[in-house]
Order: sequence, then structure tokens, then C-alpha cells
Amino acid sequence: MEIKKDFEFGTTIALWSQCPDRFLSQGYKKDTTFKEKMELASKIKDIRGVDLYGDWDVNPDNIDEVDKILKQYNLKAFIVTADVASLPEFGKGSVTSPVKEHRDLAQEKIKEAIDMAKTLSSPMINLWLGQDGYDYSFQADYIWAWESIIESVEMAAEYAAARDIKIALEYKPREPRTHIYTANVDKMLAVANRVSKDNVGVLIDTGHAYCAGENIAESVALTKLFGDKLYYVHVNDNYKIWDDDMMAGAIHPFELIEFFYWLNRCGYDGPIVLDMFPYREDPFGAAKESIELIKRILELLSEVDEVEIEDILKAQDGVRAMGMLRKYFVK
Amino acid sequence: MEIKKDFEFGTTIALWSQCPDRFLSQGYKKDTTFKEKMELASKIKDIRGVDLYGDWDVNPDNIDEVDKILKQYNLKAFIVTADVASLPEFGKGSVTSPVKEHRDLAQEKIKEAIDMAKTLSSPMINLWLGQDGYDYSFQADYIWAWESIIESVEMAAEYAAARDIKIALEYKPREPRTHIYTANVDKMLAVANRVSKDNVGVLIDTGHAYCAGENIAESVALTKLFGDKLYYVHVNDNYKIWDDDMMAGAIHPFELIEFFYWLNRCGYDGPIVLDMFPYREDPFGAAKESIELIKRILELLSEVDEVEIEDILKAQDGVRAMGMLRKYFVK
Amino acid sequence: MEIKKDFEFGTTIALWSQCPDRFLSQGYKKDTTFKEKMELASKIKDIRGVDLYGDWDVNPDNIDEVDKILKQYNLKAFIVTADVASLPEFGKGSVTSPVKEHRDLAQEKIKEAIDMAKTLSSPMINLWLGQDGYDYSFQADYIWAWESIIESVEMAAEYAAARDIKIALEYKPREPRTHIYTANVDKMLAVANRVSKDNVGVLIDTGHAYCAGENIAESVALTKLFGDKLYYVHVNDNYKIWDDDMMAGAIHPFELIEFFYWLNRCGYDGPIVLDMFPYREDPFGAAKESIELIKRILELLSEVDEVEIEDILKAQDGVRAMGMLRKYFVK
Amino acid sequence: MEIKKDFEFGTTIALWSQCPDRFLSQGYKKDTTFKEKMELASKIKDIRGVDLYGDWDVNPDNIDEVDKILKQYNLKAFIVTADVASLPEFGKGSVTSPVKEHRDLAQEKIKEAIDMAKTLSSPMINLWLGQDGYDYSFQADYIWAWESIIESVEMAAEYAAARDIKIALEYKPREPRTHIYTANVDKMLAVANRVSKDNVGVLIDTGHAYCAGENIAESVALTKLFGDKLYYVHVNDNYKIWDDDMMAGAIHPFELIEFFYWLNRCGYDGPIVLDMFPYREDPFGAAKESIELIKRILELLSEVDEVEIEDILKAQDGVRAMGMLRKYFVK
Repeated sequence: MEIKKDFEFGTTIALWSQCPDRFLSQGYKKDTTFKEKMELASKIKDIRGVDLYGDWDVNPDNIDEVDKILKQYNLKAFIVTADVASLPEFGKGSVTSPVKEHRDLAQEKIKEAIDMAKTLSSPMINLWLGQDGYDYSFQADYIWAWESIIESVEMAAEYAAARDIKIALEYKPREPRTHIYTANVDKMLAVANRVSKDNVGVLIDTGHAYCAGENIAESVALTKLFGDKLYYVHVNDNYKIWDDDMMAGAIHPFELIEFFYWLNRCGYDGPIVLDMFPYREDPFGAAKESIELIKRILELLSEVDEVEIEDILKAQDGVRAMGMLRKYFVK
Repeated sequence: MEIKKDFEFGTTIALWSQCPDRFLSQGYKKDTTFKEKMELASKIKDIRGVDLYGDWDVNPDNIDEVDKILKQYNLKAFIVTADVASLPEFGKGSVTSPVKEHRDLAQEKIKEAIDMAKTLSSPMINLWLGQDGYDYSFQADYIWAWESIIESVEMAAEYAAARDIKIALEYKPREPRTHIYTANVDKMLAVANRVSKDNVGVLIDTGHAYCAGENIAESVALTKLFGDKLYYVHVNDNYKIWDDDMMAGAIHPFELIEFFYWLNRCGYDGPIVLDMFPYREDPFGAAKESIELIKRILELLSEVDEVEIEDILKAQDGVRAMGMLRKYFVK
Repeated sequence: MEIKKDFEFGTTIALWSQCPDRFLSQGYKKDTTFKEKMELASKIKDIRGVDLYGDWDVNPDNIDEVDKILKQYNLKAFIVTADVASLPEFGKGSVTSPVKEHRDLAQEKIKEAIDMAKTLSSPMINLWLGQDGYDYSFQADYIWAWESIIESVEMAAEYAAARDIKIALEYKPREPRTHIYTANVDKMLAVANRVSKDNVGVLIDTGHAYCAGENIAESVALTKLFGDKLYYVHVNDNYKIWDDDMMAGAIHPFELIEFFYWLNRCGYDGPIVLDMFPYREDPFGAAKESIELIKRILELLSEVDEVEIEDILKAQDGVRAMGMLRKYFVK
Repeated sequence: MEIKKDFEFGTTIALWSQCPDRFLSQGYKKDTTFKEKMELASKIKDIRGVDLYGDWDVNPDNIDEVDKILKQYNLKAFIVTADVASLPEFGKGSVTSPVKEHRDLAQEKIKEAIDMAKTLSSPMINLWLGQDGYDYSFQADYIWAWESIIESVEMAAEYAAARDIKIALEYKPREPRTHIYTANVDKMLAVANRVSKDNVGVLIDTGHAYCAGENIAESVALTKLFGDKLYYVHVNDNYKIWDDDMMAGAIHPFELIEFFYWLNRCGYDGPIVLDMFPYREDPFGAAKESIELIKRILELLSEVDEVEIEDILKAQDGVRAMGMLRKYFVK
């Protein structure tokens, strides 16, 4: 079938980091500079850009240097993530913090990310409200919290629209909270469709979607159906329990194949960004291997008979679906 | 605090059934007649009505008899469930079946349920699309399926509106399919808000919500926020993996308490219906024990200082939340 | 590498059944006779035998007829499963039932299975204590129950040893109980090693192992390490939440490949039996497709460089592991 | 019933820490000194001792100071945890590391912990092999790894026995690896019973047990049945997906009650140690609230009629079990 095979690939910067966790807060690896990271990333020729996380990777003080290094290595700033999750002030939430000053700070950080995106010629920001949630029963006023979220996105969308920047809302059901409000694709679509601006869409992180109990292919289709709202894609794999941020396709290769089939059917043409956290693996190898597998999947998908797939979907025939996967994808 | 304590209680008829599973398809118990079931149910004085499942419990042939028995025992028909899940024709879906005749049959069964609800003076039907889903990758055309669902609900809503009947959409993430389309509260709200009629709302089954990874209290709040759409409530408990249909509060009592707090805040005043499947337990005892616990929870909730709770919610303080639960609910 | 490629394949009889569940207790398919089932099974040439479930498939009354039909289609009775799970008497447990008569009946059914295995020239019985467990807190005396299990297996082992029959203990964490005592490979190994007879081992059902949170390859290795106790293998796939009994490799193909690598390393040479429950799929197609995939995996595994794998395992290198899988198994 | 109510309580030191995670590697709170932590802990009068984690809390350089501070605040060193999980060298495992020097280092750290326990008059060490596991298929030689674990525990047990120190093996199914070898109570009992020394037992962390799919009460019973091996207890709660390290009883209070019933029946009389990680909550409040709830549970348990419970367990009656919980524990 006819399929887009020339996606631009990218990575988060965290992929090249020391990968800390709560047992090794200094991380499992040696520290490297942003420049060293970009030099390494640029050695994988399919990588054309990166995700930049506010504060961690880019801030108003280092943005000129970041811009210079990216240009030096011919890498785009695909997206800038607003830092509403990695400051101690946001421990109990950003836009839903119980402290008004922290809510205001969150709004500032979102605006800062929008401004930085503009400076770096990045078309959009990522808004992941990872600290906004709750852990215990009777710990949250859900209606107040959801209204705060919608209102904050509304304000952010207005500020972004004036600067011709889009907002991609990233969802995740848990970590760092046991319950994050913006937990799944449906909640994100509800928010995106509730705000009155049309520059708000959804970021699907395949690993987050797995944790939310989603079939990643269906989630892509839902973003199409409810407003054509798929703005951005993070790829990785896990065991569907926790956001393990593993190599793409390592656990659920067939679901990854179906994901790319639906990206194609829904006309997604943004970047394919690896959001992996290879605690104990070589980041260069992990990124390269993931890209190799995805490129192979795209190549093999292009060889599938489109009519054959459509027939199987119409018949809803699991046996033929498995036969198709075996025939076209298993050596 | 001021709280509604005089909810009408009810049960499904399946609660009083033989409770079959795939190992004992004849069920774990002796068969009883509908009349025997209703006689037993009526002995629990808080039970004021029942859920009737199309075909299993009520059909055009036995409806007069059913009506008579219900009146004899002074029980209301709270809801009639459209039978789009228990016929072999619906094995691969009802409104999304690959077979047009089966899709048409599904529409007929929905209309039949609406008509039966009218006859029984029941204000609404339950539409649970439990067979509509998929199991394998590449087994479903998600966009076609979702469009079929929305279109079918639209048609059903129109038919129901003309008869002054409401439609409560029940969601569940899995069983009998590994993936049911209408999987969570958010998807149901999206459907309810997409159709143009205003007689479509959501049924929250606490056990289904647990399986969908939801906090049941937050789900109540979301139905309020997105259109005031909570039409009906099923109560039971499970281990959050599978729809075990156990006694209410048996595993997650604190979450059940918070659920009733939010039902109250959101003004729900419909029935509280036990949708339990006590495979190996005495149904009378299981129903009675569940109602006793819920009534006790309502009584204790009424003794909580409303300002204290609001303070905790504003502070988002988990320690105080736990202290409040210990103080007011633990002996 | 050198690998056994000529495994004997088999199926359960339930694979060819009507596949009931609690929504369609009559099942999703038309009923067929045992003879029809065996005729169909025998058309897949790799299938050399079957699992027979006591009462469901074989009992003292029909055993001569069963034996005749099996011989007619040149199928072996690989194993006979003791019926301690499908009779209403066992609803609250078989060897741990609260009712002494039911515990005695369980022991009789185990002996009956051993006798039937002998008659059918089957080398072993399957003992799956699926109803022995609990659902609620404070519902079970765990020490009494576990002692009953160990004692019952001891008695069964003695009876079986005298008839030169082996006992394969099948484990599963849940369904039909929310908690089954014999929940995982470790508990089964503990039981097998506690009894004094050496004719007791373990049956690994890959789907049950997934539900128990196990890596199926590691579970094989553990049976080797703790007494060389792997007696039998059931193959199927699921989403690791519930025993969906789907086609082998449909969800976790890489884990299935690793499973066969370890079966080979541990010297397993018993049958590979499909324990699938294709509710909505054609059983013939589902069985054939699963066997095709497994045979392909065995063929491809034989082409892998053994030293390459051993190097990866020694280095514990996830990136190289994924590269190996891509190189040898992805087209 | 007669029940031990005067348990000694304790906490980990991590409970009073900055609580870092991968998003806030600097932690959610201000840093405090060991002395400040102990001063705070000692203000909860039921706290009589602490868990000390090697390197993090105690090492050969600061041990005299630690000892002095503990004595100053009248706190015991309940246990010393061998640091085989928080050094970068152990990223790919400690006793199963691919690097021989790291395996040797692990053995040294275990000996160091034993020596420190001796110095601090602590009766045992905690051996948690948290980094020993794997993430990808084909990343581990399971037999080699398990043999390494057993051999290492054997060596540690010998060294410890000579110093009259016990070893409590702590299990956990995941985090920081997606698969930790020593994953559940059964695997730990298999290891404890395989080594030839009798100073090796099991540490049950209720949260880890939940993540392993265990019923915590049954796990206590299993340690009794398989060698009377329960050496130590960590208490906390979570949503059974991840080791959230929340306040005890916050989510599963009934299971916590049953846990204490079985601790009593099995004669456990060691300390009850809170291993919580209150990222966003006040540690003092979280510890105090957890202890209050546990003490209340013990008090209420003592008021339960022992014969009533035994009758329910014998009848395996879930309805009566729930009625008992409501009657004795719900206000």
C-alpha cells in the first residue's frame, strides 16, 4: 500500500541523560553536556530534531546557546515542553496547585515555553500536566481541578495563538502522581474540544497510552474522529503497567505495526519522536535499534496489499489478521 | 453535612441467578423462577426496584407477567437493558457487527427495550454495547466502528425521545471482548455529547470504572462537568483487574465513601442498584450486607463536618484526608 | 543452533467447543460431537494428540467410545484433566471445599482421571485446582487450605505412582476464583517438591503464567532449576490481565520466541498443546495459524547463531537482544 | 480474641527524606540531617527503632555517629539494609551483574552490612536484590542468574551465621527493573529453604506483595507453612500496580486487618516498620496517621470474637466475613 515512509525522527534529550530514578538519584550514567548529546544524536542520520524540556534542557538563559548547537548539528527543535512538572513548587500540582503563587508560576512557565518555541522556530509546545492529580481519597476537589485545567489551557491557547504556536496536550495516567487528571486520550480530546481556540491538540505517547489501557491504533483513530487533533507522537514500549520507556516495539511489535498503519490512514505527517529512558542501555544503540525497527515496519507495511487489510477489517477476522502479520512481517 | 440518605435501592435480576461462568455454564446454583427471585428481593425492605435485562428477564412475550409480578411485590422497573450482548448473533458485535442483518437486529432490540420500558413505566433503558469491540490487532476499522456507534445511539435517542424515555450508556473496558469500544466514562461522555438529543446520559458501574482505571468519585464529577450526564448507578466491588461483581465496598471501602460524597455533591438522586454476581455466595445475604454497608456509609457521611472536608480538599492534604476517614468511619 | 523442531502438537477439546461465557452460557457457536471435533482436529497434520477434560470430554461411561474415536483419527490422549473444577459441588473448592463430602468427591475424581489416563494409555493427568481459592478477606483459613492441597497431591501421587502415571500440576492466579491458591510456577514447584513422590511436576500454561506476572521463559528455567519439573506445556496468548486464551504469539511474539529457546535449553520434549478458547474465531483457522507461527519460530530459531545469543545473555545487553530479534525474526 | 497489641513500630530513614523521583531528582522536600530526622521520628512515641540503608544512612565512616544519635533518641537499629541497589556499579545487577568486579563488590557490601548490624546491635540485615533482574527478552541467562543468587545468599548466610546475624530477604516484582528475579514470597521461600543455613528468612513488604499480586494475609501464612520464615515486616499501601509507598491502610484497609490477624496467628513478634515514601505529604503526619490506624486495628481485632472468625473461615462464607468487618471495624 501507499504509505509515508520518510518520517522525520527525533528524540527527547532525556534519552541521552543520566537516567536517574529514586534509587540512583544521580543516575545510572556519566553526565554529558547538551553539545555532546546533540553530537551523538546527530550521528544517527534519520534523527532530524529533538524535544526540548523547559528548564532541564532549555531556558531563557541558555536558549541562544541551545539554538546555536542545534543549528550546528542540523537538528530542529520539534517541540518545547513547558516545565510544569520538574520544579519543587509543582509537587502538589501546577495549574491545580493548592497554592495560588504556584498556579501563577505554572502559567508563566507555559508562556515561557511558548516564547522559547517561537525563538527556536518550533511550531508547538508540549503541555504535560504530570504533577496535576492526586494520590488519596478525599484529597482533591475534582470539579475545581478540572475547571482549572480547562481554564489554563484556554489561556495558554490564546497566548500561543497570538504567536502562531500550537499546543500539544500529552496525557498519562500515573507517575509521578498515582492519579494524573489528564489520564487518557479521551480526556485530552475533551479538553482540546472544550477550549475555543483551534490550536490545541493531542500528543500520543505510545507508552502512556499502553498504561492507560489503550490500544494505540484505536487512540490514533479517535483523535481523527474527534476533531482531527493528533499533533505529535512519542514512541516507546513497556509492559503496560508502568511507563518503562523502553525501545520501540520491544514488547508489542504487532501493536506498533498497527499504530503506523493508522497513523498513515489518518494522515499524520509530524515527527516520530523516541521518548525513551534507557536506564541501563546504551542510548545511541537504543535509539538506532528503535529507528531501524520502525523503518523496517514502514517498509514492510508498504508491501502489504491494502485491499487484503481492508477485507480483514471488514470481516473482523482475527485469524486472517494474524495470518497477514505472519506473512508480511515474520521472516 | 446534609446528604441524601433515602436512596432507593435495587438489584439486577442476574444477582439472583444461577451465576454461570465458562467452567460451570449451568451455573453455581439452583434455578429459580422470576417470581421466586422477586419474592426474595422484596424481603429486603430497602429494595424498591430492579434492573431488567432484555430477553434474559423480560421480552415481549412475558412482559405482562413480569409487570404483574413486579407490582405484586411493589417493585419498580428502574431500567430495561437492551439485549445487544446475549444473543449468538451479536458475538462479533451488535451495532458494529460485520453482518448488516445483525446490526439491524441490534437496532430492533434497542427499540424493543425502549418499548418495554414504556410499557413497564420505566424512565430509561440501559445501552451496554458489550460485544462491540475487538480482540486482535488489525481486526477492526476503528473509525467505521465508532461512527456506527454514534449513529446508532443517535437513532436510538430519537426513537426514545419520542416516547419520553432516556438512554443510559453503560461502559466497560473488557469482557466479553478484550477491548470494548465504549470503554470508559470519557468515551461515553464524548458519545453522549456528540448526539444531538438531550436524553442520552451515562451509567456508572463502579466495578467497570475500577477496571477502566478510574477513580469512581472523579468519574462522577466528570459526568457533572461535561453536561450533567449521570443518569444511573451500578454498585459493586472488585480487585480492579476484572469485573468480579462482588459485594459493595468489600475491597475499596474508602473509595466507596468518596463516591457517595460526590454523588451527593453532584445531586444524583436516582436509584442505587447492586449489579453483583455472587457466584458462590448467598444472593440474599450478599445484597443485604451490601445495602447495610452503604446505608451505614451514608449515615456516617451525614455526621462529617462539611467544612472540614472542604478544607482538606482545598489543602489537598492526604494525611488529613486519612485522619478524617479514620475519625468518622473506623470504629 | 541445534533445536528440536519436531514437537508433537495438540489441542484441548474445549478449543473446538461452543465457547460459552457468562453472557452467552449456550456459547458462541453450534454444538458438535466429539467425533466431529476430532475429525476436524485431525485435518491439521501437525496435531498428534489431545487434552481430555474429565466429565466434559471423557468419563467412565464414554471412555471406550472416546478411545475408539481417538484411534480412528490417529490421535493420542496426551493428558487427562481431573474434573475438580466443573461440577457444582466444587463451587467453593474441591480438595479445600468446606464440605467433607465434596473433598472426598474431589479425591475420587482425581483417582478416576488417573484410571482413565491408564485406560487411554496417557502418561499423565493434569491437576488444576481452579475452584480452590477465595474471594473475600477473612474467607479462608490459608494454612488449613494449603495443608489440604499438599496432602491431596500426596495421596494422588501415591495412587498415580502405583499405576505408573505422572501428575502435572497446572497453576493460574485467578478465574474462576479471584484468588486461586495454586497461583504461580513457584507455588507449584513448592508443592511438587514437598510431596515425597517423584511423579509430580508442573504444567506451564503460557497465558496463566502471563496473568501471574511471569516471564514465561524464566518460568521454564525455574522448573529446571528446582527439580527438573516441567512435565507439560499449554500455549496461548493474552493481554496479561486475564486468561483470554488467544492465538499463540498474537500479542507477545518475542516472549514466545524466548520461551521456545528456553524449552530447548531445558530439554523439554513433551507435546506443545494449544489451550485456546476462540470464542469468536474459527477454531480450525485459529489452531492452524498458531501452529504455523510456532513452526516458523522454531525454524528461525534454528538459524540463529547460538554463540551470538550466549554472548548477548552474558553481556545482559538489551540493545543487542532487540537487534538479534530484528535480524533473525523480522522479515 | 487474644492478640499482641504492643508491637514495636519503626520507620525507614527514607520516609523522612527528600523523596526524589526521576522528575525531581533533587526531591520534593528540603534536606535534613540524620539527627534532625531521628529527632522528628522520636517524637512519635510508638516508634522504637529504624531501618538503616547501607551507604544512604549508615556506612563504616559514620557508623559511630549514627550509633550515638540512635542512642540519644532511644531508637533501635532494627535492621541494616545491604547496599546492593543504590550504587552505579549495580545498575545491571549486584550478585548477578555481568561484571565480576561488581559481583564481588556486592558480596563485600553484604558483608559490610552484616558487620554494621553487629556494631549497631541489630539482629539482622535486609537483603533486597532490587537491581538483579532484566528488562528485555533474551537479556538474561535465568539459570546462571538464579544459581548466582542462591550461591550468594549461601555465602552471606555463612558469614552472617558466624556473627549471629540473621538475613531477611526482601522481595519485589519490579522497580527499578521491569523484572526483578526475587519477585514474590514464593521465590524468596524457595531461596531461603534451598540454602543450608537456618538464619535466612523473608521480609514481607505489604506494598511489594500487593504488586506481586499477593493477598498479604495468605503470604504471611505461607511463610509459616514453608519453614516458619517470616523475619520482618514492612507496612505501606498502594494501588497494586506500583510501589507507591503510601500510608498504611489508605487503600486496602480490610486486607490490612486480615494481615494483622494472620501475623497474630503465625506468632510474629518482630517490629512493624513503615516503609513509606511520602513524596508530597508531611512525613511526621503520614507516619503518625499510619500508626494510629494500625493501633486502632489491633485494638478492634482484640474485641472480635475468635470463635466467630474461625466459624466464618471454616464455612468460607464471604457474606459473613463482610458482616464481621462491618460490625467490628466500621463505626
